[in-house]
Amino acid sequence: MMAASAAIVTVGTEITTGLRLDTNTREIAAALMGAGYDTRETVSLPDDPDLVATCLRRLVAAYDLVVVTGGLGPTHDDITREAASEALGLPMSADPGIAHGLARWVHRHTEQRAREQVLRQALVLQGAEVLAATVGTAPGQVVQTPLGGRLVLLPGPPNEMRPMLQELFAHKVQGSSTVVEIACTGISESDAQVATQAALAEHPGVRLTILASPADVHVVLFDDGAGNEGILRAAESVRDALVPYWYSDDGASLASVVTRLAQALGMTLAVAESCTGGLVAASLTSVPGASSVFRGGVVAYSNEVKTSQLDVPEALIAKHGAVSGQVASAMARGVLRRLGTDVSVAITGIAGPDGGSADKPVGTVWFSVADASGEIPVMRQMIGDRDGIRTRATMFALNLLRLKIAGHE
Amino acid sequence: MMAASAAIVTVGTEITTGLRLDTNTREIAAALMGAGYDTRETVSLPDDPDLVATCLRRLVAAYDLVVVTGGLGPTHDDITREAASEALGLPMSADPGIAHGLARWVHRHTEQRAREQVLRQALVLQGAEVLAATVGTAPGQVVQTPLGGRLVLLPGPPNEMRPMLQELFAHKVQGSSTVVEIACTGISESDAQVATQAALAEHPGVRLTILASPADVHVVLFDDGAGNEGILRAAESVRDALVPYWYSDDGASLASVVTRLAQALGMTLAVAESCTGGLVAASLTSVPGASSVFRGGVVAYSNEVKTSQLDVPEALIAKHGAVSGQVASAMARGVLRRLGTDVSVAITGIAGPDGGSADKPVGTVWFSVADASGEIPVMRQMIGDRDGIRTRATMFALNLLRLKIAGHE
Repeated sequence: MMAASAAIVTVGTEITTGLRLDTNTREIAAALMGAGYDTRETVSLPDDPDLVATCLRRLVAAYDLVVVTGGLGPTHDDITREAASEALGLPMSADPGIAHGLARWVHRHTEQRAREQVLRQALVLQGAEVLAATVGTAPGQVVQTPLGGRLVLLPGPPNEMRPMLQELFAHKVQGSSTVVEIACTGISESDAQVATQAALAEHPGVRLTILASPADVHVVLFDDGAGNEGILRAAESVRDALVPYWYSDDGASLASVVTRLAQALGMTLAVAESCTGGLVAASLTSVPGASSVFRGGVVAYSNEVKTSQLDVPEALIAKHGAVSGQVASAMARGVLRRLGTDVSVAITGIAGPDGGSADKPVGTVWFSVADASGEIPVMRQMIGDRDGIRTRATMFALNLLRLKIAGHE
Repeated sequence: MMAASAAIVTVGTEITTGLRLDTNTREIAAALMGAGYDTRETVSLPDDPDLVATCLRRLVAAYDLVVVTGGLGPTHDDITREAASEALGLPMSADPGIAHGLARWVHRHTEQRAREQVLRQALVLQGAEVLAATVGTAPGQVVQTPLGGRLVLLPGPPNEMRPMLQELFAHKVQGSSTVVEIACTGISESDAQVATQAALAEHPGVRLTILASPADVHVVLFDDGAGNEGILRAAESVRDALVPYWYSDDGASLASVVTRLAQALGMTLAVAESCTGGLVAASLTSVPGASSVFRGGVVAYSNEVKTSQLDVPEALIAKHGAVSGQVASAMARGVLRRLGTDVSVAITGIAGPDGGSADKPVGTVWFSVADASGEIPVMRQMIGDRDGIRTRATMFALNLLRLKIAGHE
């Protein structure tokens, strides 16, 4: 079956001026991909009725489906509804049900003078199906256009857009293709590519993309003739080739893999952080249900706190420096004992921009993972700016926890 | 002066399939804005030579400047250079200097068979100026096209793209317009709009946009005839109307404002976190130089850790529950005493999705800010999912620190 074609449009001057990052396009693109659509183009436009009208005319004539977000709200610069009406020659009329709901909302939440603007949101394109707003006030619309393609209008705020997107595609799947994304850490992009290509030699019909972000390399396999069964067999070969680097193939974050593993084995965790300053704890606690394994942590940013809250001897810091394997291990031991957990990890390093030396340049990070049998210190020289170093150190520390819990050495 | 028009194109199937978030468009849009360009359209396309060629022809004919990122690398799906050559009728030839540099790089870094692919990156469009790669291997190109617009090709990886973008616009500013972004927290989007519009009544020629993300409302003022002086006077009126909500007008994050204030007053800070799980500490330590004011923190995720590491009496938890003003104040007092700082903040709440009750639903968060004079507990009912609640609680806690340090009550 030939995939239906699609385009995505986001409307908002805050995007084309760079004031805000557009995250809607990615969410919609992923939903379209899952629903079997082939997205051929995504566009962002300022709040300019002429530009929006011209673009919509071009896209609905060229593609089967055009999804637009933004510009449906009550303020003066919300022009998408009117531009679509103009572009497609579809008149609008107020939907009495929506108008009634908005009037009640206006009464509760706004001043009198806001009323007229808010009520603009009740205008519906001729022939459109309405998508009710479960968050916010702006409803969405779906309409078959006279120019060929189907047009979907969704609000711009991600928390208002998301439930409509889910509603829209949960029941209207057009087909689906298998994509496997194997997440790895601790391996370079090029090494991952070489290993994967070797593993794929016996699996024709699979297309490969490698996506890398700091400390995280994702191997993505697309169906290119292999079929669902074929791609799953290929993924198995690729995973085998990427032991011990791969940590998930179901979209799970490294922190949630660590949490799941610890839950399965009944282990408790603690962290002691210096340069990562709480990021490792924040990652672990981002996982729902983290409290079943994560007891807590100490952010020991100053040396005094390392000594008073983690029992790191002052003399040890004086002798080896705060950024050293000895201090990392003392921190890991201290938090393990104080919080009474099965496993702990500690991080101490130089995130920059200041604080580096010839001996220990910016990016020098010492880690130590501890359990009842002792501590294992390890050093890594991280690249990047302050954010990059902290992100890479956080991923490395989580991976040390993963390998320790899973029994890798 | 009429602003020159611009468009931005990102090339990569990972974007149009939703596998990856495009962050380049925002960075380029902001650079173009700063250089006085009016970005009329941004487009993302899959790695499809025909789609890219068609789009480039359309855009260079319509706009003064078209900036393209992605698809300049060595792999089979990097097709931007070839598509541009085809679309614009500009033949390519290998630049001997680039080819020599690449050959040396190949020798150091890759296997023999990669050589031919890597050397494709030495191909330069007829008449193009080359932008040297300071990170990675793919050079950029700038060329005046026969169709009217100027075309800029930049690599896709953000860390390779960024230095070229900076190089490109540092010396080639086309003009500039003043934009003031006033960041607020603790006020709703609609209240911020009403207050701002009242303040702007006496300042004509200023256009207003309000941008809201969880717990963060930014009031953005654009020059619309007022001129630089006029917009700065308008910004002063708006700031006056937004006391005590506004915290920065220079792009500084709330965490860096807190850090700066504490530095200026010579104060030290500590945090005690339960539901935010390290996010407040991670925010504060994201600021370069944080170590001059931030001593550290305790992530007391379990009740045992609240008792053992923060001296919260077990009986207090049993009587009031871990999520209570009494426990929040005991946590704040505990970390203040243990770490010996001037000010501290504590957070304990229910981030969900589980753990809520009729009495204390998901989103209930107690805070307490402490100094030598005592603790001030405060409760907020946060909205959103787990991430949203944690983000809003983090912003609220940072703002409590800001107000306490600045002497607001």
